[in-house]
Amino acid sequence: MFEAAEVGHSIAKAEYKRLEPEIHHLILGLQQRLRESGKALIIIVSGVEGAGKGEVVDRLNRWFDIRDVQTHAFWDETEEELQRPRFWRFWRTLPIRGTVSVMFGSWYSKPLVDAAFERIDEAEMDQALKRIEELERTLSDADYILVKLWFHLPKAVQQQRLEADAKASKFKKSPLLAEFSKNYDRFAQVSERAIRLTDTGFAPWHIIEATNPHYRDITVGKAIVERLETCLDRQSLDCNSSDDDKFSGTRLLREALDEKSLQPTLLDTVNLTLSLSDADYNKQIVEKQQILHDLAWRMHAQKRNAVLLFEGWDAGGKGSAIRRLTSAMDARLYRVIPIAAPTDEELGHHYLWRFWRHIPRAGYITIYDRSWYGRVLVERVEGFAKPHEWLRSYQEINDFEEHLVDHGISLFKFWIHISEDEQLRRFNERKKDPRKQHKITDEDWRNREKWNEYKLAVNDMVAHTSTARTPWTLISGNDKKYARIQILDTVCEGLTKATVEGENKLVG
Amino acid sequence: MFEAAEVGHSIAKAEYKRLEPEIHHLILGLQQRLRESGKALIIIVSGVEGAGKGEVVDRLNRWFDIRDVQTHAFWDETEEELQRPRFWRFWRTLPIRGTVSVMFGSWYSKPLVDAAFERIDEAEMDQALKRIEELERTLSDADYILVKLWFHLPKAVQQQRLEADAKASKFKKSPLLAEFSKNYDRFAQVSERAIRLTDTGFAPWHIIEATNPHYRDITVGKAIVERLETCLDRQSLDCNSSDDDKFSGTRLLREALDEKSLQPTLLDTVNLTLSLSDADYNKQIVEKQQILHDLAWRMHAQKRNAVLLFEGWDAGGKGSAIRRLTSAMDARLYRVIPIAAPTDEELGHHYLWRFWRHIPRAGYITIYDRSWYGRVLVERVEGFAKPHEWLRSYQEINDFEEHLVDHGISLFKFWIHISEDEQLRRFNERKKDPRKQHKITDEDWRNREKWNEYKLAVNDMVAHTSTARTPWTLISGNDKKYARIQILDTVCEGLTKATVEGENKLVG
Repeated sequence: MFEAAEVGHSIAKAEYKRLEPEIHHLILGLQQRLRESGKALIIIVSGVEGAGKGEVVDRLNRWFDIRDVQTHAFWDETEEELQRPRFWRFWRTLPIRGTVSVMFGSWYSKPLVDAAFERIDEAEMDQALKRIEELERTLSDADYILVKLWFHLPKAVQQQRLEADAKASKFKKSPLLAEFSKNYDRFAQVSERAIRLTDTGFAPWHIIEATNPHYRDITVGKAIVERLETCLDRQSLDCNSSDDDKFSGTRLLREALDEKSLQPTLLDTVNLTLSLSDADYNKQIVEKQQILHDLAWRMHAQKRNAVLLFEGWDAGGKGSAIRRLTSAMDARLYRVIPIAAPTDEELGHHYLWRFWRHIPRAGYITIYDRSWYGRVLVERVEGFAKPHEWLRSYQEINDFEEHLVDHGISLFKFWIHISEDEQLRRFNERKKDPRKQHKITDEDWRNREKWNEYKLAVNDMVAHTSTARTPWTLISGNDKKYARIQILDTVCEGLTKATVEGENKLVG
Repeated sequence: MFEAAEVGHSIAKAEYKRLEPEIHHLILGLQQRLRESGKALIIIVSGVEGAGKGEVVDRLNRWFDIRDVQTHAFWDETEEELQRPRFWRFWRTLPIRGTVSVMFGSWYSKPLVDAAFERIDEAEMDQALKRIEELERTLSDADYILVKLWFHLPKAVQQQRLEADAKASKFKKSPLLAEFSKNYDRFAQVSERAIRLTDTGFAPWHIIEATNPHYRDITVGKAIVERLETCLDRQSLDCNSSDDDKFSGTRLLREALDEKSLQPTLLDTVNLTLSLSDADYNKQIVEKQQILHDLAWRMHAQKRNAVLLFEGWDAGGKGSAIRRLTSAMDARLYRVIPIAAPTDEELGHHYLWRFWRHIPRAGYITIYDRSWYGRVLVERVEGFAKPHEWLRSYQEINDFEEHLVDHGISLFKFWIHISEDEQLRRFNERKKDPRKQHKITDEDWRNREKWNEYKLAVNDMVAHTSTARTPWTLISGNDKKYARIQILDTVCEGLTKATVEGENKLVG
């Protein structure tokens, strides 16, 4: 989930100076519309220590007309507040209609800290998060627009910052900061769960890479402008049940922003120069297929099941990678489900139904060649699903996958990445080869034209659906041999872990 | 919550024979519209043993055109099902668009049984219910119409039925049935929580008194007809975000149904003949006010707080009852918040904001003279809140009150009930008395004309918001003296319990 906020986004100072006034101008205009709308805006500023949340709050106070903005910092609860139910302090500080509240810290702070320091267990945390979801739904239903910002820093960057702060300060390092730095991993894990469970259609999270302050602030501005435009345009109470997706007015700016601020995406972090020699490959493939063969039988014996799914660019090598897995396993132990256009029966059901029906029973493996992620990839890019539908799908998919892993299913999610040039090379190769000509269609060429849109969709997909329990693996695919070994390694490692745990359980 | 399903509803056979064919006819027409709509209908049949769920399922299969209805009974999970995530069996059996699934048992069964037999704790149960809510939202978002029926029997009736069944059967009594009967209270408590947490705007529960089979079946039919009419009329994906509340077509029938099937309401179960002699009253009031006086100080010493709210008919005696409480307590310990038309500032906030702000701090008592229930009473009856708004409010109010009781606040909710005749008598008395003339306005006379609508609203209010932790107390108010003593008794009993627990905690 945080991977997409560790790719090194930055915006140069000159660019920032060009974009910032435009955002400021847009926000002032939108604030006027907010006043007239009778709606209210709540901006939640949260995330890791050292990300510059205070600077963001200052920036927001400069962007908005200060007369109708209130900033609330939620530190320790006051005596007054401790004597009331936990949400009392938040209800007190809700913005009045037409105005803005900036919440520095929020209803998320306490459950996060409690969970990170193991004062509450997972079920209790989920209960607390359910309360938060209820509150946010209640507010959203009554025309409060929620913008939830989560600022993320890679571990090393956070450590540097906190150390620099400590040096710069004449005071001793705050013990809380020391704790947070030490507990980075635990805090990240807890935050991820909180975000995943509250990343709803009516109150979505924006995870923002905070390493570069210019990028951070511009992205904040963009998130607020987009959200306000969507929600203020709606007559309906529900910002999300609209058929309309185009943000009016600022398209030019936004295109500039998309280009500037989304480069690089997660996919650009994949090193595409990796390769294997034929000799290495031939040696490794035999070894690893043998391991997989044994693991599949061991899974069967332990009555464990696994689900593998493959997504990736056209001509990325999904099919051949899948064949390297299946040729290693006994044919009775797995099924490959190719996901093409849905059947009539499938169209008659919920889009997740066709995937639910093929969930393997105990001891078996299902491999999906393309998957439920079509909803947020092709259906998003081609407009088959409306924005409020595919936006909602992140949570639906996360819920679905949580059912799988809760049941003990080993889940592997692969995106096979190749470069645009490599794809072109393969397309041309296919065109020339009579045995492969059927594999290349006009549609492939059309999809290729939407490369950047897909790239953005993949970035968002991983950002919203890669969690500790259901991680994505991005495969370096320009060299097919390297890709296949990477996939085999990932599957073997995961299944080994699952079967060892299984055996320990049997012994224990 | 179940009180409203223990009032002895019944429909005579002749009436049933008149109504049943009309419902059958309506359902067939709606089913045709369902086919054309591309939506799907899921009917969940659940509730206590012995309520005749099997008969209801048979009835549904007669009402709907059988070609497009599938009935699924969810008993023990099969080997196949146990090997998959828990919801797999439900996803498999979802109706195809245009058709109907009747679910005999459902996703609710397992969490309910697990919680009743204490195989899972409260937090785990809440987690399971959250999963269910997610599923239902996912389905509802994708145009599945959910009708959730809960059949209730009073304890004594259930016991009789199970015994009669056992006698009639040549087989031994099923051990499961014996368990359920024994565990009636525990099961009721668990069911109440499940219903309360999943009684959402998009998938509301219908709690149906099942003692009289004619009433039971007609109410089922009515629930299905109303839900289908609402959801099929909507172009929007969300059945609940509509401005329109009038069900077309069947108004005449529905008025007949309302009259026949909603008499008696909960309020009719209140015995209005109860009274106290002056001598008794004068003796008791002094004693009980002394007790309350001491309890208020003890609450203060223990830093416990209490919230009391009063609702009731105009001229029901709320004000004078509240004065009997306040005159007993030190003026520093309580505040009375009269709820009239909201201020500008209050109008600028969420409707719950004005109540949140007055939550007492530790050691103090807040008395609300009228309350947040205005949302589902006057705002519903007068049309100030739209149906999707006040329907949603049951859950919002339940959430709000759960925050209060979770914080340890003692919550008392009183409805002071009087008869229509008694109200008329008091109105006329007020008109004649120069000191009281100001208390009677044209609005009171107008409200009086809507007596039956209010009665229905009160019935629904108690059905949806009276839970074990946040019960309503219906006060017999024709005799003011009797009413005041009842209220004092209830408050003293509740505060005694709270302060004794408090002391035990201090000692323990």
